[in-house]
Amino acid sequence: MKIIKIALIGYGSVGKAFLQLLYDKQNYLINEEINIKVIYIIASNGGIYNASGIDYKKIIKFSKNNTDLTKYPYGGSVKINFNKIIENNDVDIIVEMTPTNKDTGEPGMMHITKALKNGINVITSNKGPILLAYRRLKKLAKEKNVQLGVGCTTGGALPTINGGMIDLAGSSILSIEGILNGTTNFILKEMEDNQVTYAEALKKAQKLNIAETNPTLDVDGWDTASKLLILTNILMNQDKTLNDIIVSGITEITPKQIKEARLKGEKYKLIGKTENINGKLCMNVKLQKIKSTHPLYYVDGRNKGVRYTSDTLGDLTILGGASGAIPAAASLLRDLININRGYDFLRWYK
Amino acid sequence: MKIIKIALIGYGSVGKAFLQLLYDKQNYLINEEINIKVIYIIASNGGIYNASGIDYKKIIKFSKNNTDLTKYPYGGSVKINFNKIIENNDVDIIVEMTPTNKDTGEPGMMHITKALKNGINVITSNKGPILLAYRRLKKLAKEKNVQLGVGCTTGGALPTINGGMIDLAGSSILSIEGILNGTTNFILKEMEDNQVTYAEALKKAQKLNIAETNPTLDVDGWDTASKLLILTNILMNQDKTLNDIIVSGITEITPKQIKEARLKGEKYKLIGKTENINGKLCMNVKLQKIKSTHPLYYVDGRNKGVRYTSDTLGDLTILGGASGAIPAAASLLRDLININRGYDFLRWYK
Repeated sequence: MKIIKIALIGYGSVGKAFLQLLYDKQNYLINEEINIKVIYIIASNGGIYNASGIDYKKIIKFSKNNTDLTKYPYGGSVKINFNKIIENNDVDIIVEMTPTNKDTGEPGMMHITKALKNGINVITSNKGPILLAYRRLKKLAKEKNVQLGVGCTTGGALPTINGGMIDLAGSSILSIEGILNGTTNFILKEMEDNQVTYAEALKKAQKLNIAETNPTLDVDGWDTASKLLILTNILMNQDKTLNDIIVSGITEITPKQIKEARLKGEKYKLIGKTENINGKLCMNVKLQKIKSTHPLYYVDGRNKGVRYTSDTLGDLTILGGASGAIPAAASLLRDLININRGYDFLRWYK
Repeated sequence: MKIIKIALIGYGSVGKAFLQLLYDKQNYLINEEINIKVIYIIASNGGIYNASGIDYKKIIKFSKNNTDLTKYPYGGSVKINFNKIIENNDVDIIVEMTPTNKDTGEPGMMHITKALKNGINVITSNKGPILLAYRRLKKLAKEKNVQLGVGCTTGGALPTINGGMIDLAGSSILSIEGILNGTTNFILKEMEDNQVTYAEALKKAQKLNIAETNPTLDVDGWDTASKLLILTNILMNQDKTLNDIIVSGITEITPKQIKEARLKGEKYKLIGKTENINGKLCMNVKLQKIKSTHPLYYVDGRNKGVRYTSDTLGDLTILGGASGAIPAAASLLRDLININRGYDFLRWYK
C-alpha cells in the first residue's frame, strides 16, 4: 500500500465533494493499492494541518455546519496557509481548487508554480493558470519530474483532455468542436422546450443555481472560449491566447429563431471550434444551427460534448459530463488515479 | 531516445497497415522519444528476422506484390517462426494480430501466453484469447511485470477499453451498452435508407467487403456478444463466458418493421447491454428499437458507439471508431504509446 499525502487548496463545494469522495471511495482506493492521506486543507483565511492525516469523518461533520476552517477544533488555524505546505515540504500532491481568475490566474498561479518548483505534483480544477500559462507550467513540471493534471478544467466529468490525449494517442488531431458550457446549453434547451425568451430562461437557470448572478462569462461565450483554448493549446500543441478566438454568445437569440429551426428539425447550440482552414488555424465560439446528423445534436440541457477529428483514428465524439460538485471532484480524483497508474500526462508534445 | 524492439505476429491487412503506420508516424514517435524497430514479422508459414530492424521501405514495397514473406529477399525464411522470438528473447513487445478463433483462442493463445511468460509485453487485436482467458493472462502479465494491451479487441479505433478504464477511473461502472459491430449496423442503415430486404442489404455489404462470405458471427450477434463480454469482464471485474449472454441477431428484421419504426422517428439497432437488474448482472445482445433521445441513436452505418453509466462521473457516451485496417492498426499503436507513456493497464481490479 502506497501512502499518498495530499493538500487541498480551496475548500468550497468542489473541495468538500472531493473530501467526501475520498471517504466514500476508500475500498476503490485500497484496490488501487493507495492510501490517500489529506494532511492539509487550506481555505482563503487559514486551514488545517495534520501530518498523519485529517480524520475524514470529523472534518466532513464539521463542514456541514461551519464555513470557517480556522475554527476546526482539532487543529484549525489562521497560520496554516499555503506557504506552510512549501515550508514543511511533506506532500506528494496538491489539489488546487481556488476560484478561477482569467486575467491574472491568481491565487492558483502562485500555488501551482510554487508547488511544481518544489517537486510537488499538481491536480487542478482552476482554468485560470492553465489558460494563461500551460506551456510554462508544463515545462516546469517536466523539469521537476512531476505531473500536472488538468482534466477538470475543460468540462469537469467529460473526459475531454483524456479523449484527445490518451484515446487518440498516436494520431494527430485535425479539429476540435465542442459544446463545453452547461449553463448556455441549459438556457437554449429551456427556450426550445418552453418557448420562453432568453431573459426568462436565464432567470430560471439562475433560480436553479445553474447560472451565476452575473452570467456574463457563460452567456457571452468566454467560458466556452477558455475551455476551447486549453484543449487547443494542449491537444494541438499551440500557444494561442483568448485574443486568437472570435467569440460571441447566446444573448441575442430569439424564440422565433429557435422555433423556425425546430420546424426544420434543427437546433441552436453554442459551439466552440478549432479547425484548419487553408493552412490557418481558426478558432471561434458562436451559436450554430445544427442538423440531427451532427454528432453534438443530442447534447441537451446541462450535458456537454466534444468531437475530435483525427488522421488515423477517425472521428471521436464524447458525450456526457454530469455537472456539479461531485462530478467535478470525481474528475480530479480521476487524474489522481491515472497519475498513480503511471500515466505521463506531459509526454504529449515537447 | 528509447529503442523498442517489436515482433509482428500475423501479417494480414492489419499487420501491413501497422507497418505502414510506423513508417508514416516516425516524426510522431521521435517526439514521443521512442525509436521502434520491427525485428520480426511472422506469418503462418514463416517470417523475417533482422536484429537491427527490418527496413520499412523495403518490406512495404515487397508486400505490395508478394504475399509470401519467406520469399523476402533480405532474410525471409520458413525457419523464422514464433518460437524463434522466444528462443532469441530479444523483443520488448509482440503485436499479436493472428485471426480470431473463439473456441480455442489459437494460435493467439499460445503466442500471448508464451510471450508473457517470457516477460514480453503484448498488444493484441485478437479477440479469441482475451475472450477465453483474460483473467489468467492478466494475472500472468502482472506476475511478469509486463503489460497486456487489448484496446483493439473491442471496437478497434473506438476507445471502449480506455473509455471505461481511464476516462472513468475512480468511478464504478454501473452499466455498459453498445453498438459494437459495424457490419450489422451497416446492414440496418442500408435497409433503412433504401427500403431493401435483409438479404439484399447483406449482399451489398458482402460486395463492399464489409460483411464476410460467411456472415454468421456478425449477423447472429456473436461478434457483439464477444466484445460485450470482454468489456464486462475487464471493466466490471467479472468472469463471465459467452454462455452467460442471451444473444440474438438481425436476420429476422423486415423492411416493414424498419419502415414503421422510422415513421415514429425510431431506429432498430443491434445493442449489447450489461446491467444490474435487482442485484443480478444481466447481459444480452438483441435488436432494439430506440428513440432519437437515446445517445446511440445517431450511430449509423459502420460507426460504433458505447455508453457507460457510472456512480460518480455520470454517463459517458463514446461514438466513432472508423472501420478498416488502418484504424485497427492505429488502435494497436495507441496501446503501444500509452504503455510507453507509463500507463499500467493491469492496475484496474485485482
